[in-house]
Amino acid sequence: MVSLTAGEPGSGAPPSVNRAAARIHQDNTVLNYSAGFGILPLREALAEHCSSWYGVDLPAERIAITTGSSGAFVLSFLAAFDAGARVALARPGYPAYRNILDSLGIEVVDLDCDPDVRFQPTVEQLEAEVAQNGSLDGLIIASPANPTGTMIGREQLSSLAQWCTSHGAQLISDEIYHGISYGEPAVSASEVTDDAVIISSFSKYWGMPGWRLGWTVLPEYLVDPVARLGGNIALCAPHGSQIAAVEAFSTESMDFAESQVAEYAAARQLVLDALDELGWGRVAPADGAFYVYTHIGEHLQRFGSSEDYCAAVLEEAGVAVVPGTDFDPVNGHEWVRLSLAPGREAVEEGLRRIKAFHAGDPSAR
Amino acid sequence: MVSLTAGEPGSGAPPSVNRAAARIHQDNTVLNYSAGFGILPLREALAEHCSSWYGVDLPAERIAITTGSSGAFVLSFLAAFDAGARVALARPGYPAYRNILDSLGIEVVDLDCDPDVRFQPTVEQLEAEVAQNGSLDGLIIASPANPTGTMIGREQLSSLAQWCTSHGAQLISDEIYHGISYGEPAVSASEVTDDAVIISSFSKYWGMPGWRLGWTVLPEYLVDPVARLGGNIALCAPHGSQIAAVEAFSTESMDFAESQVAEYAAARQLVLDALDELGWGRVAPADGAFYVYTHIGEHLQRFGSSEDYCAAVLEEAGVAVVPGTDFDPVNGHEWVRLSLAPGREAVEEGLRRIKAFHAGDPSAR
Repeated sequence: MVSLTAGEPGSGAPPSVNRAAARIHQDNTVLNYSAGFGILPLREALAEHCSSWYGVDLPAERIAITTGSSGAFVLSFLAAFDAGARVALARPGYPAYRNILDSLGIEVVDLDCDPDVRFQPTVEQLEAEVAQNGSLDGLIIASPANPTGTMIGREQLSSLAQWCTSHGAQLISDEIYHGISYGEPAVSASEVTDDAVIISSFSKYWGMPGWRLGWTVLPEYLVDPVARLGGNIALCAPHGSQIAAVEAFSTESMDFAESQVAEYAAARQLVLDALDELGWGRVAPADGAFYVYTHIGEHLQRFGSSEDYCAAVLEEAGVAVVPGTDFDPVNGHEWVRLSLAPGREAVEEGLRRIKAFHAGDPSAR
Repeated sequence: MVSLTAGEPGSGAPPSVNRAAARIHQDNTVLNYSAGFGILPLREALAEHCSSWYGVDLPAERIAITTGSSGAFVLSFLAAFDAGARVALARPGYPAYRNILDSLGIEVVDLDCDPDVRFQPTVEQLEAEVAQNGSLDGLIIASPANPTGTMIGREQLSSLAQWCTSHGAQLISDEIYHGISYGEPAVSASEVTDDAVIISSFSKYWGMPGWRLGWTVLPEYLVDPVARLGGNIALCAPHGSQIAAVEAFSTESMDFAESQVAEYAAARQLVLDALDELGWGRVAPADGAFYVYTHIGEHLQRFGSSEDYCAAVLEEAGVAVVPGTDFDPVNGHEWVRLSLAPGREAVEEGLRRIKAFHAGDPSAR
């Protein structure tokens, strides 16, 4: 079976980060609770990283280390929103946003984002939503996005941020796929506003999902509320992961991460080059992240839905891809998500099999 | 300064666990997301551990590995209670219970637990509360408890569990201090009921707070709800910590943990032997955990409150202890909590300084 479903890299952490982690344990370092916002050396390294990537000057005081981006979502949602708040997000999108909000009694407001808006929310949509259903308390954006890989340009990001500030809506910017892009680098919300909650992680670019290490850049006014909540809800992020992750910013680690991006880029090109032959339809502009989100085109009529199409591809070609319904309950039945994270070789073999399956070749598998 | 405030051991993890962790990183093991409930070897090791300590036969399917006990609290509260639910807990108690419940919009029902009930809730209190204010949706207990160290005996635990089952209240049993007791071992809720959520962690007995690794034993009916929530809210507990923690149950690791308990026991005996000379009043029966919770006795009149007493002890004797107000906003001003976790030597020096301070000896510090 070739799985093109993974939401996580296959590379593992940079070896230099692993060496640092091994040292911690070889020395029997006492790993007690760290400070709630994390160890200062890592917060300072992140401040420097933001300066280097985005040209912004963020004080370490506004940076909190969290237990993955998941930890940052729970904390920031609880700190920023009351139960009953209305928070908008793009559909398709990462299903956990919706499910976490739901579990906290926060109302999810779907923004139906189709290929015409590159699957990203627009100020026009926000205006229309408010006009029709009343004010919004928050907006969650992701650039590059899961499942589409599309990015939000500087101008659009700036107008979304301005709209949020002027309408009292908390902007939450998921930047977990930053570093993984194939043209221009992604713009951070920190470049256009001080009012956003920015959430990111070591899980994707650095290949460290199991280390459960993320961070959030908070607006000044959320620093104390998140600190109070975090001290009760999470205590701290994994302490050993924090110490080792300081090494993530070394030249060796960054080179390692970039070599993974090159691998995703090669896999991405294989998919884009094969689109016509695959008979797939419109494809989301895969600006970043390690996904290609594509309409199933001519296969929709035959299979009726991407769920049935994916089931057949799995059964007949031994290739697993994710139906769009996981990300978009309304239009997802016409789309599938391929992950590039398994790397060029896996993607090449997956595409070969899917083509053979389409051609009715019984040796597809 | 001598700090007797720590809620965490100073020992660090057992060396055998550290060796396992070092190997993981030396081998550049890819640490991606684990299964949501954690790796099977650790869940099976925990099932065996419960069998060994409690004589109960728990299927690994009911055991979920969590990001510390904190992760288990958030997940189980969300799975078991709706906003507006009424959940009872003992006062004094661990303040995070209250604060997490608050943040989730769950009503905290205080049970005023004084020395006469050994600081632990009784069925009579639950009956009185229900008669006065209506039904309860849950009860959180902790044995051994923080800050008092008192334990709930088998009979009382059984009647509390029965009361919860027959009144539709979810029992949540915090067993994080199990293994650290000074007479009879603590009784687990799993010994008396299948309906409790049991929460524990590698943070205390095994000295691994910074590893962020806990677990919960769930009643059958909460397995699926917690799995769904966890898949969105936390994804998984730290993967490397999980692999290494399988070593926590080796003879070498358990011997290491027991040697720490012996250290706490020696420190505890020093405090109990010094009580009269210290002029402190009633003391909570310190059956387990690494705390002694004591009335400040004759010093109450002079200082007016334990907060002022603690401030003076810190200032004049250079010894930090925690005022009871951190755990009990109503009666805590008469009590202080000493931690035994810093070990015998620190406790001995702390007691010497406090005695000298009481005696007006200017060399106390």
